[in-house]
This record gives sequence, C-alpha cells and structure tokens, in this order.
Amino acid sequence: MSGGGLLHPVVVDPAASDFFVVPKDVLLVEPPEGSPGVTHPRGFLAAGVAAGLKESGRPDVGVVAVAPDYRAETVGAAVFTRNSFAAAPVIVSRKEVLLDRLVAVVMNSGSANACTGGAGLVAARAMQTATAAALGVPPDRVGVASTGPIGRRLDTPGVLRGIAAAVAALASDGGSRFSEAILTTDRFPKSCAVDVHTRDGVVHVGATAKGAGMIAPGMATMLCLVTTDAVLTPTVARSLLSREVNHTFNRISVDGQMSTNDCVFLMANGASGIALSGEALAHFGAGLRATLMRLALMMVADGEGATKVARLRVKGARTDEDARIATRAVADSTLVKTALYGCDPNWGRILSAVGAALPDSSFPHVTLDIGGARIVQDAEPVDLGPDQREALHATMRGCEIDIVLDLRGGPGSDEVFFSDLGHEYVTINAEYHT
Amino acid sequence: MSGGGLLHPVVVDPAASDFFVVPKDVLLVEPPEGSPGVTHPRGFLAAGVAAGLKESGRPDVGVVAVAPDYRAETVGAAVFTRNSFAAAPVIVSRKEVLLDRLVAVVMNSGSANACTGGAGLVAARAMQTATAAALGVPPDRVGVASTGPIGRRLDTPGVLRGIAAAVAALASDGGSRFSEAILTTDRFPKSCAVDVHTRDGVVHVGATAKGAGMIAPGMATMLCLVTTDAVLTPTVARSLLSREVNHTFNRISVDGQMSTNDCVFLMANGASGIALSGEALAHFGAGLRATLMRLALMMVADGEGATKVARLRVKGARTDEDARIATRAVADSTLVKTALYGCDPNWGRILSAVGAALPDSSFPHVTLDIGGARIVQDAEPVDLGPDQREALHATMRGCEIDIVLDLRGGPGSDEVFFSDLGHEYVTINAEYHT
Repeated sequence: MSGGGLLHPVVVDPAASDFFVVPKDVLLVEPPEGSPGVTHPRGFLAAGVAAGLKESGRPDVGVVAVAPDYRAETVGAAVFTRNSFAAAPVIVSRKEVLLDRLVAVVMNSGSANACTGGAGLVAARAMQTATAAALGVPPDRVGVASTGPIGRRLDTPGVLRGIAAAVAALASDGGSRFSEAILTTDRFPKSCAVDVHTRDGVVHVGATAKGAGMIAPGMATMLCLVTTDAVLTPTVARSLLSREVNHTFNRISVDGQMSTNDCVFLMANGASGIALSGEALAHFGAGLRATLMRLALMMVADGEGATKVARLRVKGARTDEDARIATRAVADSTLVKTALYGCDPNWGRILSAVGAALPDSSFPHVTLDIGGARIVQDAEPVDLGPDQREALHATMRGCEIDIVLDLRGGPGSDEVFFSDLGHEYVTINAEYHT
Repeated sequence: MSGGGLLHPVVVDPAASDFFVVPKDVLLVEPPEGSPGVTHPRGFLAAGVAAGLKESGRPDVGVVAVAPDYRAETVGAAVFTRNSFAAAPVIVSRKEVLLDRLVAVVMNSGSANACTGGAGLVAARAMQTATAAALGVPPDRVGVASTGPIGRRLDTPGVLRGIAAAVAALASDGGSRFSEAILTTDRFPKSCAVDVHTRDGVVHVGATAKGAGMIAPGMATMLCLVTTDAVLTPTVARSLLSREVNHTFNRISVDGQMSTNDCVFLMANGASGIALSGEALAHFGAGLRATLMRLALMMVADGEGATKVARLRVKGARTDEDARIATRAVADSTLVKTALYGCDPNWGRILSAVGAALPDSSFPHVTLDIGGARIVQDAEPVDLGPDQREALHATMRGCEIDIVLDLRGGPGSDEVFFSDLGHEYVTINAEYHT
C-alpha cells in the first residue's frame, strides 16, 4: 500500500498483513508509486475526473474501458447486491447490460442513486448512454455503478460532463486516477495488480475497489472492478468471479450490512493471447483470489474507526453453512467487536455469540485459540499462567488477531475477516446529519 | 419508576413511555417507595442479601419462595435461552426441576456460572439443594439462575452462606430487596406490579427482572421472575408465559445477543382463590403482557449507553416471519443505531437493512413514517418543507422514536423496541478487561 492517497493515518497496514499470502506462480506488482490497478493488464484504459458531485471537489467520476482493438474479443461478468432496495445503477446493470460482452464501466461517487425512483433509473441510463456514445460502443455493453448518500438525486448534468471529461482523459496508465474517483469516506484508495505465470506466458490481473467505509447516510457500499488480459470464456469468467467473490468479499464484515449498491465487474479482454485451461486456469484462479483478498483485507482495515483486523476460523461445525452462520454471528457481534477494540481476549462473548447463532445444540468439546494460544478446552477456560496471560494480552494489542474456534461437532468450516468497533465508528456514523 | 434505586441518571424514563399502555381492567400498582414487584401478589416471600460475590459488596443472592400455606397448590412454568453454551443453572433448571411444581427460585449475580464445566453443574445443584433444604421443600421444586461474568468459577461457599441468610430474611415485603440482588451493570432495578380486575375479584401479578445491561465479560443476560396469586393450570401457565414472553421480551433488542443465562420463571400460588377462564383469563393475559412489556421497556431504556428507545413496526411483509426478520435486522443494525444516537432521521439505513435482510424482492410501494411524518412514499423520499424538516429533527431529539415501515407486499407484521448505540456503549464494552 503506497501512502500517497491516504486521507488519514492507517492504523492497520494491509501491506504488512499476515493474513495475506501470495500464492505460488503469482507475483504481486506493487511499484513505489502505487499499484496500477485496473490498467495493469494490457489493453485497458482508465480515467478519473472531478465533476463537482462531491462537495470536497475531489474526483468523483471514473471510467474504465477496453482499448478499441480488444473490444470484439472481450468477455465480462458481474455480481450484484441482493438488497431488495437495489440502487438504480444496479437495476440497470443487472437487467439492461449484456454482461458477458461488457467493455466499459462508468462509476460515480457523491450519490448512490438509490431510492430515487423512476428519475434515478433515467439518470443511470443517461450515464450508461453517455459513456457508450463517447466510446462508440452500444449502451448495453457499458456497466454503471454509483456510491454515496442514499435518496439524494444524482446531478445528471454534472455527471454527464464528468463522463465526457473522463472518456477524453482515458489513458493506459489511468488506473490510479480511477481508483481515486470512486472513493467516499475511504481513508485510502484500494488497488491491486498481479502477474500470473503460466506455461504459455504471463497473464495480468488488476483490480480496484472502494469500501467498506460507510457512506452517509447509507452503508458500506462495496464497488469493485477487475481487469485481465487473459482469454476467458463467458462461462469461466462468470463462475470464476462468483466463486472468488464468495471466497473473499463475502468473507469480510465491517458491520454486516449488504448495501443497496454493491457490485463487482470483471472484464477479460484477451490481449495476452493466452487461453487458460487446466493448471494454468487454476493458477489464474489463485491469482484472482489473491487480488480480491488483498482488496477485501484493505476494506476491513479501512472499516470506519477500525484499529484491528481479526480473522476467525470456525472448524468442526455440523456443516459449512453452520460454520458460516457462526463466523458471521461473531463478526457482527457488537460485544465481540468492542472487546477487540478494547484489546480484551473476551472468549465468553465469542462462545455466546456462536451458541446463540447455532441454538439448541451442545458442543462439550469446543476449543478456542487466540493468536495460537489455547484459551478454552472442552468448553471450559484454560488456566493460564502469568506469562501466558501476558503473551495473550500482547497478542490482543496487535493489529491482527487470529482466532480459531473448533466446535468438534462435524466437518463444517468457514472463515471471516472483520474489524473492531470503536468510538470513531460511533462518531462517524452518529455525527453525520442527513 | 421510582428514583430510589438509580445508580446513574436514567436518560429514558420508562414510567413516562408513550409505548406503554395499561390495558382496560388492569391497574398499575406503583407506590412512591417503588414497585413491590414479586411480593405484590399474596403468599410470596422474597429476600436479597450481600454474600460477597460482587466486589462492590452490593446484594448478590436473592430468593423468592411461595409461602408455606400455598406450596401444595402452586403451579409453575419457565422459558430458557436456546444458547448452545447454556450456563450450568439453565441446564439444571431445564432438566432437573419439575417446572410445573416450582415453589422457589434462587438467583445470584456476580458470576454467570457459564462455561464452567462439571464443577459449574455441581455448584448450580448446590445452590438448588441448599435453598430447598432451608425451605424444607424437595430440590426439584427449586429453580436456579445466575448472572455475571462468564467462565469465572462460582464462589460456592459464599453463595451458600448467602442462601442461608436470604432464606432467613424471607419476607412478604422483600420484593424490592430481591430486585436489587440480581442486578449487574443495570442502572436501576426493574419491577412491576399490577392488579387485574375480574368479575370474581382482583388477582395480582408481580415481576422483577434484570438486563439488558451487558455483563462483563458476558452479554445481556436477562433474568425474570413473575409471581401471581391467580389459580392457573400448568398448561395455561406454560402457554401464557411462552406467549407473553414472545410478545414482550422477544421483541426487544439492545444488541441482538441471546445470552447463555436468559430465563423467565413464573409461579402461580392460587392464594387469591380465583380460577381464571374465558374473559377473566384474557384480562389476566393482558395484565401479564403489560407487566412483562413494562420490564422489557425498562431493559431497553437501561441498555448500555442508551439515550433513546425506538419502536419499529413493520407492516405489509409477505409473512409475519418476514416482518420479524426485517424488524430484527433494523434493531441490530449498528448503522441505524448510531444514526438514532446522532438524532439523525436516516431512513436510507433503515430501508437498506430491510432490503439486505429480505433479499431478492421488490417493494416499490414501501412507505416509512417517523414520529407520524411520512418520510418515504413509493420507495422515494418525500420532499419535506422547512417546517416539516424541523418537526422531524425535533422528533429525533426526543427519547422515544416511533417508526412505521409498510412494505405494501402482504399481511405480515411485527414490532420491535430497541436502543441506540453511542459512545458509552463502546466505553462500557471495550474498557472492561477480563
């Protein structure tokens, strides 16, 4: 993580995360000037401009497009929020875009364009149409996404001026400017780029995201755009994206809120000429997962008021789904999160959250480890010596807390990464006024 | 609410609640010196003593027993937490007590006796046996409950000394001393007493509860004991208690945590000689509901750091269960709770929490009212004039916020009462160290 774009000091440094492991055959590309993100793969153009949607005057409209030569071969995919009050751009992108032929995405910050009714749909379509016209592509090949306050009308003339300026500014090194344009309350931009080495050569993956700083008066909108120059089929692109989002973004929680605007887009323009199958495809999947996991960890680290990132692995549940229910219950427990903030190894709150989420069962052999130290054995606290207690408290004062809960009741497992909940979270979320 | 037992200033005054309505034929009994609680009905004895379980030296062991003359006729019932890490006293009370013949309950604060293994079960049984012996009743007619930190061994000799002292101190006016003995971080004791007028005469209901102040390092344990001198059958007692708990305690949320120790006991000793059926039973049910609702509202008002109580009614859901999912999602949303703390009428967070909890649907005609003012109509914000905006902000600065969400999608409805989440919640829950 380069320090260039930081608005505030980052307490948790995602670049130093013990939770992030770069897989074999994958190289993390991180020049000193910051990750190139979406323009790391060949044949992508990006731009970010300030169109006056944000009162701060910071960049607020971004466009990423496949370079003209590669548009015919490009394959796309996307996943969207399931929130029943989905924003207008989500409705338009989900229903009115040929996602497997996606060649460009336009995003704005400064307004979520959510709960804005028919006028909101008109505004989202106007963003799509204007971007398509400026690029010379059909509107149904352009995705659209927004982030910012809910229920506030989009300044359509402003965003359209921004789109014109962004398309005019598209450049093969525009990734970092794009990443700035989609920020809201984020403390730093979030980009990642990796090289995946295959027998046929190197394919490139880039991604940028925003979130999970809440957006007043909304919530943790998560937008993400992934680019690659690999040759993918639509079916593979779709299944890869859905699987890897499930392994990464769906395993983080800042405050358990699925927003009206969440979306992840993928464009694969084939510019590397390398078609992936077998082992090479597996390596690519690992590279994609690493990219998304890095962004996901950055989001947790950037959770509002976050001072720590915890990883909870639950094993021994009856099923994977039971394990998932348990990890989410802990990750979303305000009692666990405030204990984490207070550097308190409060295992009672963890067990109780799990016991409430998986009721009417019995786990007499449960064990709990924090930072590698056994705290609970057979559902009873382990008597710790003074040295062990001091070591445990030292672990709790760190920035990354590793927690393993083994229910000893079956084969189910899951993991989740989550932030703590402190005074700054309350301040940020209470003191904004609509 | 009398001010006598307040440890801290109460921001929300449960006695002045607009959410509490005393039903017809029910009289709230609230003398200036405080509610008599469990000793309001005839034929009940109670006591609370300090046995040194709490470092503060405050009362920590309480006993409530049916007076000897009425024990033969007494009928009992209870409901317990479904938490899979249920505390030892919950396990003992659930499995080793003839609940429909319950004649006494012993409770301690200062230790939850949860996650304490076999030794914890031995300690819970020792509490039960000692109480039974002192009263001269069989152990399986005595319920036991605990509240306090999880995973800390109960001081069994201390609690047994306390039980001996409490049984010796049992008195027909001991309700308020009992209510003091079960407090943990509660800011005030919680008792209620009502007279229910029937054609055959008056029956009395009393109750005392503790919660939902969290218990370091545990969570919001809720203990409640209800007494009445009505004549009830075991079947009616069980079904009444379960129904009315569902209508009251199951509709409140401070932080969405079901603890390892929650339990509600009911004892009906028949001392009034009035057997209830038909209309009289309905009146009694209304009186019981009013009693439990009053305690439930006191718990929310006493939520850690609470400055407000909100009522959310969801209508127009597909089913009652959908409505329940929606109300809980809002009540447990840290974004909604911090907005409430900030006096912010943040309807976007409410809609988004509901949309995430009831995904993959569409509610195009949803309406939202706050304090009687229409804020959202057909899923879009209503344009408010300056006077309306000022009125809305005045509503938000109040202590009780009434929110009605109509999804306009079916007959399902539910309501929930919940507190806000502010800095003091974080302070209380982060700054305690295990």
